[in-house]
Amino acid sequence: MLEPLAHIGRDPATGGYLRDAWSDADMELREWFAGEAARRGLDLREDRNGNLWAWWGDPSRRPGVVTGSHLDSVRQGGAFDGPLGVVSAFAALDIMKNREIVPDRPLGVVCFTDEEGARFGVPCMGSRLLTGVLSPDRALGLTDDDGATLAEVMTRAGRRPHDVGRDDETLATVGTFVELHVEQGKGLVDHDRPVGVAASIWPHGRWRFDFSGRADHAGTTRLADRDDPMLPFARVVLAAREAAERRGVVATVGKVRVSPGNANAIPGLVSAWLDVRGADERAVRALVAELARTSGGGDPGVAELATSGGGGPDTAELARSSGGGPSVREESWTPTVEFDAALRDRLAKVIGGDTPAPVLPTGAGHDAGILAAAGVPSAMLFVRNPTGVSHSPDEHAERADCEAGVVALADVLEDLCR
Amino acid sequence: MLEPLAHIGRDPATGGYLRDAWSDADMELREWFAGEAARRGLDLREDRNGNLWAWWGDPSRRPGVVTGSHLDSVRQGGAFDGPLGVVSAFAALDIMKNREIVPDRPLGVVCFTDEEGARFGVPCMGSRLLTGVLSPDRALGLTDDDGATLAEVMTRAGRRPHDVGRDDETLATVGTFVELHVEQGKGLVDHDRPVGVAASIWPHGRWRFDFSGRADHAGTTRLADRDDPMLPFARVVLAAREAAERRGVVATVGKVRVSPGNANAIPGLVSAWLDVRGADERAVRALVAELARTSGGGDPGVAELATSGGGGPDTAELARSSGGGPSVREESWTPTVEFDAALRDRLAKVIGGDTPAPVLPTGAGHDAGILAAAGVPSAMLFVRNPTGVSHSPDEHAERADCEAGVVALADVLEDLCR
Repeated sequence: MLEPLAHIGRDPATGGYLRDAWSDADMELREWFAGEAARRGLDLREDRNGNLWAWWGDPSRRPGVVTGSHLDSVRQGGAFDGPLGVVSAFAALDIMKNREIVPDRPLGVVCFTDEEGARFGVPCMGSRLLTGVLSPDRALGLTDDDGATLAEVMTRAGRRPHDVGRDDETLATVGTFVELHVEQGKGLVDHDRPVGVAASIWPHGRWRFDFSGRADHAGTTRLADRDDPMLPFARVVLAAREAAERRGVVATVGKVRVSPGNANAIPGLVSAWLDVRGADERAVRALVAELARTSGGGDPGVAELATSGGGGPDTAELARSSGGGPSVREESWTPTVEFDAALRDRLAKVIGGDTPAPVLPTGAGHDAGILAAAGVPSAMLFVRNPTGVSHSPDEHAERADCEAGVVALADVLEDLCR
Repeated sequence: MLEPLAHIGRDPATGGYLRDAWSDADMELREWFAGEAARRGLDLREDRNGNLWAWWGDPSRRPGVVTGSHLDSVRQGGAFDGPLGVVSAFAALDIMKNREIVPDRPLGVVCFTDEEGARFGVPCMGSRLLTGVLSPDRALGLTDDDGATLAEVMTRAGRRPHDVGRDDETLATVGTFVELHVEQGKGLVDHDRPVGVAASIWPHGRWRFDFSGRADHAGTTRLADRDDPMLPFARVVLAAREAAERRGVVATVGKVRVSPGNANAIPGLVSAWLDVRGADERAVRALVAELARTSGGGDPGVAELATSGGGGPDTAELARSSGGGPSVREESWTPTVEFDAALRDRLAKVIGGDTPAPVLPTGAGHDAGILAAAGVPSAMLFVRNPTGVSHSPDEHAERADCEAGVVALADVLEDLCR
């Protein structure tokens, strides 16, 4: 099913995908989406935030049922995370047409922009801007590894960056959203079922820790004279793991920038991105507050924020210690998302009949979670992942399971469009 | 004195320099060198390894006295490290001409290629290739951050990579080498003198640690199921510092690459470059062996190499543990360099007369050290650095001290050319 996309943005050395938002690969994927829409006579629209919508029927009269996912990838990601949901959406429409169904409600396929946040560090950028939980100013000022801002990158891609932001007109077209996605865990393996339904998304956030030091010569600077930011950074990496175990959450440092990055010089700055998720919102935030405090921050504002359980949608400077601790900055925060219970149970029943599809929680964030939090009735279908591996070239799903996913999605859409 | 070069490769945001070997900035610096040579009627030659030589007199008849340094920089380096030695070389020749000295021996100014190793990870590439301590195969296969090999980069720059390697013809032209350099420490501040002479260069090496793990999703992978290479990496950073204190050496991790580098994924690979130096060769190598062993290596070959005190000129695979420890690879190794004692004392006397210039050891590597190890009588002059800071935009030397350095260099060259 994913063959037409298999070559786009693929690193031949690893088999992994490099599909940053607004990259050449992304532009090619968008072209592919437009072609699929045209081939089916769907109405193509790109909203102000760069999300693509292909409509069967006119959603300006009555909110529609929307399905889809995203086409961008993490760096060196797998083939399924994102594209499976978009490809399955088009395939489900084909099944409905073959079944000669004439939907009572408009039916849309969506491709959200920059779900992974690989380029600018903030995930679900397209849906966050659409729903207004990310401010345009913050988004447009984010920079990629080359120092280019989102505003510059969108301008180069022929878009109008100053149009981004909350878009009620587009949001009003989405009556219900169903996102199909490869599972990123082994819940369906345990249930021995090809397709399941999402229960909830764990609360999760991303924090940037900037450790500042003093760049100097690696050979001539005595240990006692050094202010080497690599050391407190290393301590935070280990403390994060220890605290995650203790608090029953997961914490990951997967992205690090060392400046200037000379093998023969003490660095001046180490920036590290900490991703923390768990079933308990308070435990997640308490871990970050603990790390900020124990690494030299100690700003009382941290503890306060940590127990508020809320957190603003935008960047919050958590701590910059006068004692030389790191500055800690919240890059994104998504509270627990409980998907609409009635919709979830309806889907499980449509798919499973007398033995309803399994209902699974997940630690992965998705655009469906952003829409659900914004009040759009939303649901997710998961397709079995035999190893559970994701965000890796090794990510995989069996063809039969993917096909079962498409049929399940068609059944669900048919049910929802009645 | 450095004004004509001040704009080349300068990062306006930091004031630091980005002068990677064979970059646009480097090509511009080479043009400047060629212009200075032409302006003085010197004979310009580029050797097979990309080092530039400007001769006053013909060194094919009789080996000459050579002075100079390098023009490339560490990333975000200062203005003095390297260029001060080249600019001072031309300025010293001008003084000699003003003094109407006709040297008895040919006099050369050299600019060595890629002294810092910022681009390909191996320092003193130009002098190492020239003297044959770095093999052409190894050098040409080294890659930069974009994955381009030295061979590709040289080809793009219009050079013939397959000509690189030991060059006895060029080496035979160098009878004596004197490198002037900004001090990278505060020895001359302590002595209250503007110019000093190098005694020796500490043994130093660079090792690459590759920590392999399994890339996976940061939200859905349980802690117990993770193979996260960031953790053993962090432990090695801290262990290196502790062991350096214990063994009386300096150890630095200044360059790190995390792959694939997604904030929302466990990394699959963390590569870290460890720089270790100290007065005692055995202590330096023992530290690396200890780290390889305690981080899960334990290959007996490590201990052996560690106590041999030698180390081949080329890459040595120190350890790849079956137990999941890092692979440790020696990228460069330079044993203790004691500069020629007679030459050193002669220079100290020429400069200081009755109060000879201070003689100082250093932890910094230099092309003069590579030539000395290859049997070329070599010496270094240091110019006072008021803060000792180097490999940083904050590196500085006072104009009066730089001018004193030029006069000292002219005096030394005049003495050596008699």
